[in-house]
Amino acid sequence: MGLAPLAHLLWSRVMTADPKDSRWINRDRFVLSNGHACALLYIMLHLMGYKLSMDDLKAFRQLDSLTPGHPEANHTDGVEVTTGPLGQGFANAVGLAMAQANAAAAFNKDGFELFNNRTYVFLGDGCMQEGVASEAASMAGHLGLKNLIAFYDDNHITIDGDTNCSFTEDVGKRFESYNWNVLTVKNGDEDLSALWDAIVKAQQEKERPTLVCVQTTIGFGSLNQGKASVHGAPLKDDDIAQLKTKFGFNPEEKFVVPHDVRDAYKSYAERGAAKRAEWLKLFEEYGKKYSKEHEEIKRRIAQKLPEGWEKALPTYTPNDKPMATRKLSEIAITSIAAQLPEMLGGSADLTGSNLTRWSDATDFQNPTLEIGQYSGRYIRYGVREHGMGAIMNGLYAYGMHIPTAGTFLNFVTYAWGAVRLSSLSQFQVIWVATHDSIGLGEDGPTHQPIETAAALRALPNMDFWRPADGNEVSAAYKIALESRKTPSVISLTRQNLPQLEGSTIEKASRGGYVLVENADADITLVSTGSEVSICCDAVVKLAERGIKARVVSVPCFRVFDLQPYEYRISVLPSGNPIMSVEAYSTFGWGVYSHVHHGINTFGVSAPYQKAYEKFQLTDHDVADKAQKVVEYYKKLGQVPSPIAIQAALELQQ
Amino acid sequence: MGLAPLAHLLWSRVMTADPKDSRWINRDRFVLSNGHACALLYIMLHLMGYKLSMDDLKAFRQLDSLTPGHPEANHTDGVEVTTGPLGQGFANAVGLAMAQANAAAAFNKDGFELFNNRTYVFLGDGCMQEGVASEAASMAGHLGLKNLIAFYDDNHITIDGDTNCSFTEDVGKRFESYNWNVLTVKNGDEDLSALWDAIVKAQQEKERPTLVCVQTTIGFGSLNQGKASVHGAPLKDDDIAQLKTKFGFNPEEKFVVPHDVRDAYKSYAERGAAKRAEWLKLFEEYGKKYSKEHEEIKRRIAQKLPEGWEKALPTYTPNDKPMATRKLSEIAITSIAAQLPEMLGGSADLTGSNLTRWSDATDFQNPTLEIGQYSGRYIRYGVREHGMGAIMNGLYAYGMHIPTAGTFLNFVTYAWGAVRLSSLSQFQVIWVATHDSIGLGEDGPTHQPIETAAALRALPNMDFWRPADGNEVSAAYKIALESRKTPSVISLTRQNLPQLEGSTIEKASRGGYVLVENADADITLVSTGSEVSICCDAVVKLAERGIKARVVSVPCFRVFDLQPYEYRISVLPSGNPIMSVEAYSTFGWGVYSHVHHGINTFGVSAPYQKAYEKFQLTDHDVADKAQKVVEYYKKLGQVPSPIAIQAALELQQ
Repeated sequence: MGLAPLAHLLWSRVMTADPKDSRWINRDRFVLSNGHACALLYIMLHLMGYKLSMDDLKAFRQLDSLTPGHPEANHTDGVEVTTGPLGQGFANAVGLAMAQANAAAAFNKDGFELFNNRTYVFLGDGCMQEGVASEAASMAGHLGLKNLIAFYDDNHITIDGDTNCSFTEDVGKRFESYNWNVLTVKNGDEDLSALWDAIVKAQQEKERPTLVCVQTTIGFGSLNQGKASVHGAPLKDDDIAQLKTKFGFNPEEKFVVPHDVRDAYKSYAERGAAKRAEWLKLFEEYGKKYSKEHEEIKRRIAQKLPEGWEKALPTYTPNDKPMATRKLSEIAITSIAAQLPEMLGGSADLTGSNLTRWSDATDFQNPTLEIGQYSGRYIRYGVREHGMGAIMNGLYAYGMHIPTAGTFLNFVTYAWGAVRLSSLSQFQVIWVATHDSIGLGEDGPTHQPIETAAALRALPNMDFWRPADGNEVSAAYKIALESRKTPSVISLTRQNLPQLEGSTIEKASRGGYVLVENADADITLVSTGSEVSICCDAVVKLAERGIKARVVSVPCFRVFDLQPYEYRISVLPSGNPIMSVEAYSTFGWGVYSHVHHGINTFGVSAPYQKAYEKFQLTDHDVADKAQKVVEYYKKLGQVPSPIAIQAALELQQ
Repeated sequence: MGLAPLAHLLWSRVMTADPKDSRWINRDRFVLSNGHACALLYIMLHLMGYKLSMDDLKAFRQLDSLTPGHPEANHTDGVEVTTGPLGQGFANAVGLAMAQANAAAAFNKDGFELFNNRTYVFLGDGCMQEGVASEAASMAGHLGLKNLIAFYDDNHITIDGDTNCSFTEDVGKRFESYNWNVLTVKNGDEDLSALWDAIVKAQQEKERPTLVCVQTTIGFGSLNQGKASVHGAPLKDDDIAQLKTKFGFNPEEKFVVPHDVRDAYKSYAERGAAKRAEWLKLFEEYGKKYSKEHEEIKRRIAQKLPEGWEKALPTYTPNDKPMATRKLSEIAITSIAAQLPEMLGGSADLTGSNLTRWSDATDFQNPTLEIGQYSGRYIRYGVREHGMGAIMNGLYAYGMHIPTAGTFLNFVTYAWGAVRLSSLSQFQVIWVATHDSIGLGEDGPTHQPIETAAALRALPNMDFWRPADGNEVSAAYKIALESRKTPSVISLTRQNLPQLEGSTIEKASRGGYVLVENADADITLVSTGSEVSICCDAVVKLAERGIKARVVSVPCFRVFDLQPYEYRISVLPSGNPIMSVEAYSTFGWGVYSHVHHGINTFGVSAPYQKAYEKFQLTDHDVADKAQKVVEYYKKLGQVPSPIAIQAALELQQ
């Protein structure tokens, strides 16, 4: 309630958006970073005429409603990003503003300001305390994102009570240190003219993002205004009654919008519709002069990739030299960067290690720094993984870009708060996650992921790719770029790997496939990434001992799981034992294998070959273990494949 | 190399520490937050006479050496905390300083300043950009931690090149906004007297932590000094030769310490040893006047819990009323808080939801705010989960405390960077993780963990507890508090659960046990937390259909996995099928069960009963699925338990 006057002012007089086309590309964006206040957002969307009825409002926080407990993108019309986990929305807003700056620099022409929308964001004390917001704020100041305007609900109350108990910093000064324009409104509860003045000043600012510190009273107007007790709990009936009376409403009525309010909001919506109509005309004129750009904008808004882009992906044969998959990733990125202008690359200060930058890339930078342009497509995120993850969500949400960015696989989890929201929001965000196992060697256990693969595989709607060679790297990029509603993490090695006999983009694109077939096999070895070639070598060792083995590569569990059962069972059939081999925690491999070989402790600092020896992940070790498994399973007889069990139970239903 | 002069100054003239007893409780702490510079730390530890030989230095980054690629606590003598993942060490240092402030307030007496050590920390641009460091810095300023002195290696270089490309904020101003004392040294490469003056000023500061911005040149003295190229790569031979010559060393010699240097460092170490001897005498005198406190300090330093403390843990019978396990956790905490003065509670601004505060707790606060004392044992962390996790690591590392703190389970992953370092460092840190599933209801999928349990179970040396009732909650606290080298996450419900027939602290303390036995069972249902009682109800439903079922509760996988195979197989025997039931991703259940029932999508915003119905997690649904499983497995005949397979293969070796 403390932010209601400001919200009214924004929607009624400031924001340009057409509720009848909530995806119009040049709309002003609104982000409610303090997502727990979503009742306010839902009410505004309803009043403005988005697809949110009074019945939807009545179903607030009920099963399968359009009004869940926190706003969800791709769920409720008019909701730009998913918020609630604190700090995320603010960082998303930085991404939205970056995307706008990039689109403007790439496409605006003299007399054709196609992309000039602003991004407005509300945030509270909770968001202000979160590190992810600090990272994004520093980055926004660095980039001088003048079209970003944030309103800080400075009510001095969090769930634990007064902010005095944990949060006494000088927020305004902090944002000044980040190069933000900082304004203050002393009575945000009632002083609409001061709010208006601040907004005008913010819009006039030409070099920096703006933070408006709006001093408000939590639960303004209620009997408990200003107290922590109104943070999470609903108001009591008598309190609601006095509140409605105080503000001139009938205390007996619920879920009613007075006619004059309804009419007023209709006129605000019409103003937005007229702006959009103007823009569409402008865009048509633009098409006459700049047909190539016009086509590209249309294509990108429609989320279509250019015809035949995937032909640019490199392919390999076993004669090609061994290479680190991070290097193969660099080759793939370089091959497709020109085909896919929507790709916005970047790295969290590991460009030279992640190999994420194509050779003729321009950096995305504030041009005043003279080290890049807003039209640049390579983003220097700094050492800010969590901010990067949340900013990528904002970049995608703008609707014109596919963000791809690098860090070490182990530090993707620094950004988990943002990563899980990519999955939940169905945002196509691609992580280039290099240095993906003990194979990174000397940097040691602080940098060697063990649990990370399990975490990513357990996350719904997340494609975790671990390619084994060049063709599989190309397959990973192919599917990751075609999956417009699914984020991906592509896990890549520091060490060289051979190009495999039998791998193809097509096969690997199914998520899992038979790499080495043997109709009389005693055992199947199933593996990913750098351990696949070790399994192939183990097959040779096993053959010397008279044991016949198959090898299955599963670069992406989720994509494989989407294949028909028939195919999956053909890859991992019932009968003989299946043993997994992977340099990670074995946790979760039960979905495919009977016996799991991996690392259930932390890693070790050593040259990578020594690390592989220590954890018994050489071809010798794998052969030895496989032999034992074959002997043990002989006693058990034929065993069902875990997939066959799953299939039988599901098909039964 | 840029920080070498400062390091020399600190160890030679400033720090008080005795290399012969690296665990002496009142030593000054040194944290190298930019852990990739660990060669510097190892050299200093060697020169000072810690247990680190010249051979250890020669084995830098080699297998099983004491000198891994990043410093690891509980691995190398003299290393306080594990650093390398950026920002962590700085936040650990805040925790170390908080622990010192708490110990001083609790135990120092007139004439007996037992705890007065300082915490010194080095950090670079990478740490400065990480959100976890921002969170901790804001908190340190709020708390006015005067004994914390941080040195910011302001060399303007990160891996991507000049900080100009991503990091142009005014760091000093930012720290002033956090209430830090900010000092600058312009020529940190050579101006030892300016460094000395800054240290003296920092030590004289009485109200705030100090940040010294030390302007240095990366790779100072090398041919490429000041360039990003010297960040990660070793110097070439000719460069090393000219560097040694420049600084007066023999360029032909490697791994040699000149005698005068050796002697000088010996004298510094002797100064520290003398200080420790003085302290021991003081402590002995203290014991004569304050024998109770003396005993408590000794007990806490020895990491022993008080005799019989666990008798204070509550027990329950099925006649006790249903309760949320978060409420049962509050009762447990309240019961033991007085027994365990080493327990430092807290919450990331969710005290009223996590129920982490015992009724007569005092807040840990800067006394000038008049809302608590440094002797208080309840910490208001603010909305700073990652900072909280890293600060808890520092609190534990001090050596006198067991930190326990709350947030929602879903937001433990915000802190993953710190959580995994608790596990790797063997730091006993306890997360009170409430609102642990779709059972939280209306807040919806942004707040409902799905993948979190799998991630925590895949993490080595992490006890993830999901207790099903009051006795299991007590068991979780019992084992978590007794496990001095293992962190724990205790996952707790928002909704009420019944007190189960057959649960005891003793049984649950084994991590898994048979709750409902049936010698002729057709199926075993294995479950955790809130789904255990649903399984018990399903058993009744199945009995009506003539199907006999057992129920196994596994509140902690890792603790169960540490039991002997014989016990584990008795709990989950071969023969009939085993089906898991849990309101999380089923990923990973293959370790115990053949068929897995759970939620492999995101959750939903709804009253919790509706959410359970939607995901087919009622007693009816479980019975229906179990019946199908029984029918299917009849065709397969007897099947081995996954644990039995694991046992057979391991025992074979």
